[in-house]
Amino acid sequence: MKIGIIGIGTVGGGVLELLKKEKKNIEKRVGEKIEVSWICDLKESVNKDSSYRFTKDYEDILKDESVETIIELIGGNTVAFSIAKETLKNGKNLITANKYLLATKGKEIFGLAKENGVKIFFEAALSLAQSNGYAELDPTFDVKGIDTAHKISLLSYLVWDELVDFEKIKIEGIDKITKEQVEVAKSLGKRFKLIGEAIKIENEIEIYVQPSLLDKEDQLYGVKDAYNGIESYGEHLGETFFYGKGAGALPTANAIISDLYKIKNSNAWNESVN
Amino acid sequence: MKIGIIGIGTVGGGVLELLKKEKKNIEKRVGEKIEVSWICDLKESVNKDSSYRFTKDYEDILKDESVETIIELIGGNTVAFSIAKETLKNGKNLITANKYLLATKGKEIFGLAKENGVKIFFEAALSLAQSNGYAELDPTFDVKGIDTAHKISLLSYLVWDELVDFEKIKIEGIDKITKEQVEVAKSLGKRFKLIGEAIKIENEIEIYVQPSLLDKEDQLYGVKDAYNGIESYGEHLGETFFYGKGAGALPTANAIISDLYKIKNSNAWNESVN
Repeated sequence: MKIGIIGIGTVGGGVLELLKKEKKNIEKRVGEKIEVSWICDLKESVNKDSSYRFTKDYEDILKDESVETIIELIGGNTVAFSIAKETLKNGKNLITANKYLLATKGKEIFGLAKENGVKIFFEAALSLAQSNGYAELDPTFDVKGIDTAHKISLLSYLVWDELVDFEKIKIEGIDKITKEQVEVAKSLGKRFKLIGEAIKIENEIEIYVQPSLLDKEDQLYGVKDAYNGIESYGEHLGETFFYGKGAGALPTANAIISDLYKIKNSNAWNESVN
Repeated sequence: MKIGIIGIGTVGGGVLELLKKEKKNIEKRVGEKIEVSWICDLKESVNKDSSYRFTKDYEDILKDESVETIIELIGGNTVAFSIAKETLKNGKNLITANKYLLATKGKEIFGLAKENGVKIFFEAALSLAQSNGYAELDPTFDVKGIDTAHKISLLSYLVWDELVDFEKIKIEGIDKITKEQVEVAKSLGKRFKLIGEAIKIENEIEIYVQPSLLDKEDQLYGVKDAYNGIESYGEHLGETFFYGKGAGALPTANAIISDLYKIKNSNAWNESVN
């Protein structure tokens, strides 16, 4: 499989590193050779030892018919949106770590993938990529709950196959919690955590993001630093809980590589991460 | 997709219940109609209101060329082994909740699936099905660590695509822990848990099952009753933790239904549950 990577920041560098270091394992899993045909970035310096064919113009990659899959890692929802649309219209698969893009423009993007019979995977879209572009775009995304809203919106899409309009999500950040409130919570043995919640009642999906007061018994109580926790309740399945690193170059790169595997080993236009 | 279900105990009943109750949702997810062509059991009374075509002889189902997928729920590794082999040789997909069968006879079964280009899924094989046959087979499996050994052996297979000979697994049950030891652990704020561990060093996979003394900080400390916990460490991914119900008719039936989805939406002969 010939791939092109657009945006070589921390995560893109991690993907190149893993593809080199774990080449044999990855190709065995995916079931075929993987060739990085192109890399694209604004800075040519990312192409250390000139190992890869480099371009500053992503159109070069999208025009190359031999490229089967585009990994988009530039972040934001303007240029990245154009890249995503052109990728899918050109019959290429898309892998992205850009949850902002998918949460806000997902309806059009998922629609295009279906229309063109190609696949889109975003296992890494649930992690905080801190790729170039994105982190600078708005560093307050985190405390204001926007980042959490992106995540819960995409999780909810994976569960119910329906993307809620981003404007309809009720978002309250953790930035309004005062020091005094934190102290009171502590004295009660509790902690504030920024929680995103999605519930489907009848045919209506409701999504909220807000600071919640958790006690020690709650699975999410101990989730901190670079980690994310996901609690789910299914009518027949009961409770499940998942916990893992939601940030950092290598965990994110790892998720992107696992999307490469899915491209080759699923025939759904859009299979969920679960 | 026409399916046949062999073994209608608690779990088989749960599968029939979910297929009826959630028919529309399941068929939407799977992407086609699902028809239960046959059910098979030793007792005809399982066929309430004679809703399904019934047989006591599983050969009737295996001979039926229109049946695409067999759900094996009888447990054990003798008759179930014959059923599994014939299913795959007849070019049918196999879904099973029988971890005992796969952990002990997996090499031959996975080999046959590959050879015949069919799929085998076992998401429910990590749960305690308590299907008819199995639970009675040996009620000491649980405390002696055999059940845990089946689970960790299959998890390790999913991670490294290699099944360790079951005889090579070092197993120590929790039945040797005395009441006094439990009291001492408690006074230290710790708990004994039966832990299965799989580690790959160089090219060698080592699997152990033994009681371990855990403190409150450990993610696995709070896992009890019908729940299972899985902790994993990946070189690039870091720590992940997964927690969910590992017993009960509906959680197990739920996992079996999700295997139906995978049969239609993956093209790998054997895709992992992850």
